[in-house]
Amino acid sequence: MLKFDVQVSSAVRTTEEREAAAVGPLSATLLDQMQRYWQAANFLTVAQIYLRGNPLLREPLRPQHIKPRLLGHWGTSPGLSLIYVHLNRLIRERDTNVIYLAGPGHGGPALVGNAYLEGTYSEVYPEVTQDAAGLRLLCRRFSTPGGIPSHVSVQTPGSIHEGGELGYVLSHAFGAAFDAPDLIVAAVVGDGEAESGPLAGAWRSTAFLNPARDGAVLPILHLNGYKISGPAVIARDSDDDIAAFLQGNGYDAHFVEGDDPPHVHQAFAATLDWCYERIRGIQQDARAGGLVGRPRWPAIVLRTPKGWTGPKEVDGQPAEGTFRSHQVPMADIRTNAEHLALLESWMRSYEPETLFDADGRFMPDLAALAPRGDRRMSANPSANGGTVLVDLDIPDFRDYAVDVDRPAVVRQESTRQLGKLLRDVFVRNAKSANFRLFCPDETKSNRLGNVFEVENRCFVGPNLDVDDHLSADGRVMEVLSEHLCEGWLEGYTLTGRHGLFATYEAFAMVSASMTVQHTKWLQEARNLPWRAPVASLNILLTSTCWRNDHNGFSHQGPGLIDVMLSKRGTVTRIYLPPDANCLLSVADHCLRSRDYVNLIVIDKQPQLQFLDMETAIAHCADGASIWHRASTDDGREPDVVLGSAGDIPTMETVAAAWYLRQFVPDLGVRVVNVVDLMRLFPARHHPHGMTEAQFVDLFTADKPVIFAFHGYQRAIHEIVHGHPDVDRIHVRGFNEQGTTTTPFQMAVMNEMSRFHLAAEAIRHVPRLRDRAPALLAECDARIAEANAYAREHFEDQPEIRDWVWSD
Amino acid sequence: MLKFDVQVSSAVRTTEEREAAAVGPLSATLLDQMQRYWQAANFLTVAQIYLRGNPLLREPLRPQHIKPRLLGHWGTSPGLSLIYVHLNRLIRERDTNVIYLAGPGHGGPALVGNAYLEGTYSEVYPEVTQDAAGLRLLCRRFSTPGGIPSHVSVQTPGSIHEGGELGYVLSHAFGAAFDAPDLIVAAVVGDGEAESGPLAGAWRSTAFLNPARDGAVLPILHLNGYKISGPAVIARDSDDDIAAFLQGNGYDAHFVEGDDPPHVHQAFAATLDWCYERIRGIQQDARAGGLVGRPRWPAIVLRTPKGWTGPKEVDGQPAEGTFRSHQVPMADIRTNAEHLALLESWMRSYEPETLFDADGRFMPDLAALAPRGDRRMSANPSANGGTVLVDLDIPDFRDYAVDVDRPAVVRQESTRQLGKLLRDVFVRNAKSANFRLFCPDETKSNRLGNVFEVENRCFVGPNLDVDDHLSADGRVMEVLSEHLCEGWLEGYTLTGRHGLFATYEAFAMVSASMTVQHTKWLQEARNLPWRAPVASLNILLTSTCWRNDHNGFSHQGPGLIDVMLSKRGTVTRIYLPPDANCLLSVADHCLRSRDYVNLIVIDKQPQLQFLDMETAIAHCADGASIWHRASTDDGREPDVVLGSAGDIPTMETVAAAWYLRQFVPDLGVRVVNVVDLMRLFPARHHPHGMTEAQFVDLFTADKPVIFAFHGYQRAIHEIVHGHPDVDRIHVRGFNEQGTTTTPFQMAVMNEMSRFHLAAEAIRHVPRLRDRAPALLAECDARIAEANAYAREHFEDQPEIRDWVWSD
Repeated sequence: MLKFDVQVSSAVRTTEEREAAAVGPLSATLLDQMQRYWQAANFLTVAQIYLRGNPLLREPLRPQHIKPRLLGHWGTSPGLSLIYVHLNRLIRERDTNVIYLAGPGHGGPALVGNAYLEGTYSEVYPEVTQDAAGLRLLCRRFSTPGGIPSHVSVQTPGSIHEGGELGYVLSHAFGAAFDAPDLIVAAVVGDGEAESGPLAGAWRSTAFLNPARDGAVLPILHLNGYKISGPAVIARDSDDDIAAFLQGNGYDAHFVEGDDPPHVHQAFAATLDWCYERIRGIQQDARAGGLVGRPRWPAIVLRTPKGWTGPKEVDGQPAEGTFRSHQVPMADIRTNAEHLALLESWMRSYEPETLFDADGRFMPDLAALAPRGDRRMSANPSANGGTVLVDLDIPDFRDYAVDVDRPAVVRQESTRQLGKLLRDVFVRNAKSANFRLFCPDETKSNRLGNVFEVENRCFVGPNLDVDDHLSADGRVMEVLSEHLCEGWLEGYTLTGRHGLFATYEAFAMVSASMTVQHTKWLQEARNLPWRAPVASLNILLTSTCWRNDHNGFSHQGPGLIDVMLSKRGTVTRIYLPPDANCLLSVADHCLRSRDYVNLIVIDKQPQLQFLDMETAIAHCADGASIWHRASTDDGREPDVVLGSAGDIPTMETVAAAWYLRQFVPDLGVRVVNVVDLMRLFPARHHPHGMTEAQFVDLFTADKPVIFAFHGYQRAIHEIVHGHPDVDRIHVRGFNEQGTTTTPFQMAVMNEMSRFHLAAEAIRHVPRLRDRAPALLAECDARIAEANAYAREHFEDQPEIRDWVWSD
Repeated sequence: MLKFDVQVSSAVRTTEEREAAAVGPLSATLLDQMQRYWQAANFLTVAQIYLRGNPLLREPLRPQHIKPRLLGHWGTSPGLSLIYVHLNRLIRERDTNVIYLAGPGHGGPALVGNAYLEGTYSEVYPEVTQDAAGLRLLCRRFSTPGGIPSHVSVQTPGSIHEGGELGYVLSHAFGAAFDAPDLIVAAVVGDGEAESGPLAGAWRSTAFLNPARDGAVLPILHLNGYKISGPAVIARDSDDDIAAFLQGNGYDAHFVEGDDPPHVHQAFAATLDWCYERIRGIQQDARAGGLVGRPRWPAIVLRTPKGWTGPKEVDGQPAEGTFRSHQVPMADIRTNAEHLALLESWMRSYEPETLFDADGRFMPDLAALAPRGDRRMSANPSANGGTVLVDLDIPDFRDYAVDVDRPAVVRQESTRQLGKLLRDVFVRNAKSANFRLFCPDETKSNRLGNVFEVENRCFVGPNLDVDDHLSADGRVMEVLSEHLCEGWLEGYTLTGRHGLFATYEAFAMVSASMTVQHTKWLQEARNLPWRAPVASLNILLTSTCWRNDHNGFSHQGPGLIDVMLSKRGTVTRIYLPPDANCLLSVADHCLRSRDYVNLIVIDKQPQLQFLDMETAIAHCADGASIWHRASTDDGREPDVVLGSAGDIPTMETVAAAWYLRQFVPDLGVRVVNVVDLMRLFPARHHPHGMTEAQFVDLFTADKPVIFAFHGYQRAIHEIVHGHPDVDRIHVRGFNEQGTTTTPFQMAVMNEMSRFHLAAEAIRHVPRLRDRAPALLAECDARIAEANAYAREHFEDQPEIRDWVWSD
């Protein structure tokens, strides 16, 4: 067995610290009160897991008081509550601003219990009253159908971090601390989740935290030794190795270890005081202009037994301190009298009668230990970011318009215009310090480089003369980790700020699971009236599958669209602006929006510009509209509709319409462009969706529709099902055919080129049946010709000659 | 600027090592030869990036020799080639078995160049001959349309690791080393990719590498300071902090730093020798029975300038050693005479005339430095795992059958039967040592615990008495990281072994991007005749969205199905066995298959068993079939088809059929079950897809189809489009409605309950139009009744009473 003697590692503690720990800063009274507060939190944790009645043990425990099914996680909870109680003391004594992020997945009952003890839970859920009835309801809701999950969740007041999918507590914590100079984010890292890649990579966020303008993150690595069954890897490491690991990530480790509560209380209090002083010292130095290099931040390593204060043994097997305490230390309570007795003696060991008064109200002397009002971690406004959100000051996006006198003539890098807008967003909001751009080292590559006229890359550490726009004060957050970019942005927006995550399309899949989890967070938050709306999570996908130049097949994948399509319409939005002016209009909308996950997909290379600004605005407002100038149906019912969504598909579609005008002049062709992909859903499936009448207005009721799509070809069928006669919709799109090649060859490989689209149109118009063989032969010849040209000139990466707009 | 004096960090080097480095193990002749070999590799790298003709510089360089578009990455390449040349020496001198995994994304030309120099490239691509013509072709194929990408790719012989998406080199390396006692996997980690979460988490794989039976991984952390534009975070750390970081991850760091080639050669050679001795020492000790705790493995930190040996300055700006060398140090070669001259003098600095003979053949004295035959890293059989693949010895899966006398009566945890089969797979293949189970600490939770009768969890480090089936010899790989599970398994199968990754369904999204990248790898490998087929990547998804008990909405998401649906049919398979016997049949098929990514989705809780083994085998062979016993159409054309895919949907569907039999006895209902989801595609879209005739045989040509689907509801429409009249297919499935609740309530919330399915059927059968209001009212009443029961008994997690099979 691991030993849990109180000890302070010699590796990292000074003599002063050690002495302080031995004596401890807590008076006997305070120590006793904190111990009892902790007992109350532990009691409530056990009660939530086990009890459906008799929550205060005012009568002997009987089988009918026990839940029929025991769910929840005891193991991590006592440690989480210990930390909570100690942070409360820190907040009260220093009148400081702290939020609590609980990394260990299933410590829900601990955090819920503490939110209840300090009153916030009853404020946001008034039915859970501060009395015996409220306690009973608290227990009955926990981990029960229709209740709350066993992990820290959106429903937990004070949380900005769901304990569902593991690994993001540190990236969320740093995101919360950026530009929050006053805030300390206490981030508890479980030893299980510490094994996950995103968590492991997030330690190094220290290289991006500037004490002169940011808040602080205090990581508390909680080692209790086990996951569900196996040992936690880092928990078996020596203190020396753990200290080295933290040193290598920019921290100074402070160890607190033990299983004797009074000693652990004193040691933890002393360590927390020391870390607080150190944090404020670092900040004061930096704010006095003394930031040199990168500070070494304090971190706490807390080693306490799994299921601490729980049963030592169950059925002759060790329980406390082992994996057997991970979830429910003993089951069968209803049928096993011995287990029932063990549970009762366990719960009574917390002396509930000394914790709650006759009405079931928390004892006043203990309740007084909690911070007041907004200082309570469960009520801290930063953990309900919408309450402190300041609107972005966004310049008029029309000022960045590309002049488009004639459509499809000018070529322009569309994202460069967005970069200019973002530059001025930085300028206008410099005082509010509430906007950041997150990107895996691709800001310039993505043509957003104009931001560097006014803003720098963030790097806290040695800067060299040769560095390019690098500063500890920068708000362009470049790190080669999609997980960090996404996690930081999530933490930043959930605490009431704004941002954009710009990344290569294919590699947005790296953090897709985080995007899904954030979407779920927003979906649930919308059902909670007490959670104020936050800024949307804006994701710009560039370097798309259609234009990857020297990169090959591994870089080609529009998969995030599919991932987001299935999420609830209340939250998800996907925009495919075909050119710069549409991009500007869309971006403006997204930056102003609340509680959405917005995907914006557009390439970064020079591309044909189609719409002048006023037309673009109207088009984006509609989300989808007929492009009359590219159409040849003269407003009549066309023979065929050519639809598109995405920049390259739109270019190919417009070219296909032009081609058909040359070779089948009597064909009525309507061109429809879709910017807001969700418009294609039936209205009953998505709030942006179209009614049947609207759909028919654009796509007719029964004419063939040839649709060129940026994303995976068949996803469109998932969207349009439910509209009239969807069998007639024939989609071309990315079909998992790719290599290192030109955009035109990519279109050919995936059978989405202008000639393929024209051929598909010809094939499906009944009245062309007789002429189709000749027309299709012509298309085939064109494809062969284009292919031959591309093969011949393959090193020239040829732009196949431009096809102009039809007028 | 960072200094690149030759230095050996005092933090970790012994005096002996330091002296060895100063003198060095290389004779003057060997040093000269290795330097020239390295020059040749660098020359080929530059040639691939810049040249389309005159590849040997036999005439003065002119604009027409230059590629029209310059793509590729010079910066990381010289370091990668240096390591290659030194590993070659190690292999030859020690006759040892080494493969090379290049983490830095875009070092393609370096690895391709080295594969060419040692002859393998010409062996697998005979058109790229060992002469001037071959060299010209080598250059023209690089990063060119229709050629090879600029990163290390599937096409690169010797690679099992694509340099596309970053972050997986260490997990692949450890996967390759498991159960390969003879193999050393040299894994170069770029300082950029070191920022990614999956890479950061993979260092700790040391806790799972057993020197007594596994090979070794030698990480070489290559610091050259920059990503595309910004500094690499770890590269700005002090040697002390880097050594501490590596110590904390289980390594002993050895630093080699410099910019003077001879000194770096000597220092690197000495360090490599030392590390090799250390690795073999650790292994010998362990194999002599001396494994105590966890060995501390050597790791090399190589700090050399970015773009080393490239132009020092371009246009008055520093180039070598800065981010400006990341890709192409200078462009505009065709039009800028100064750049052309600089390129020529740069290339001539490698003295190509001393490296290649008159015919363009590599000089024999240099070629002789490369290892021979299979010892060449580019020809090592482990890097073409299919060539060394040993078939799994799989017991007859029929032996694990659940007895099903009457369908839908017996309840059984289906995955428990699979666990028994896997147990015996472990036993039968113990000698071959070529099967492992990978899982984030959920093996028991997923009901696969029978494997622990014969196999242990793997953990190399201190074991405690209280630990449960834990051993350094275990082959059940539990780590709380989906990235590690997936990456290890990928490395394990790509080097010729077998395995299964079992994980919670929702969190399979964590590593979805890796799954996509592996799928792409297999798709491309299938086009290369020289790559032998490898075992499939098998992924078992349990704890599905329909049955999550105490976990809430964050744990509910069948998204990986959508991700895999869009991938090429040659590679991807999705199976949804409805019960244990189908699961066994499917698993047997998957374990025997090659070059697929197989998803198997099934819940772990007790569930109704439908098919006896012989029926299950026939059903799985068909992939989809009519369940006559549940149907009431008596073989005639039914009024409605009830289809399903997935366990809970199948239970609800069968119950809906039974319900309809009671209340609408004159209705002809056909029940169709789908095990192999890809069967639903039109045959022209997927090799498992159905012809129109087959589809009509199952689903009729025009009758309404009510389909209950395990995954996101609308995904089915993506699959079936192209079959006759898909407007008539009405799908119910996961619709992003979830919370902590029972499976039945989940079905109700997502409107997929038996009553919802029955109502949907009634709604769509034309001849029921008159009776529909009454019938639908009855359905609504049933839903309300069931809901009320569930609300009343919500703590009982009620199993709504079972609906039996119809006969």
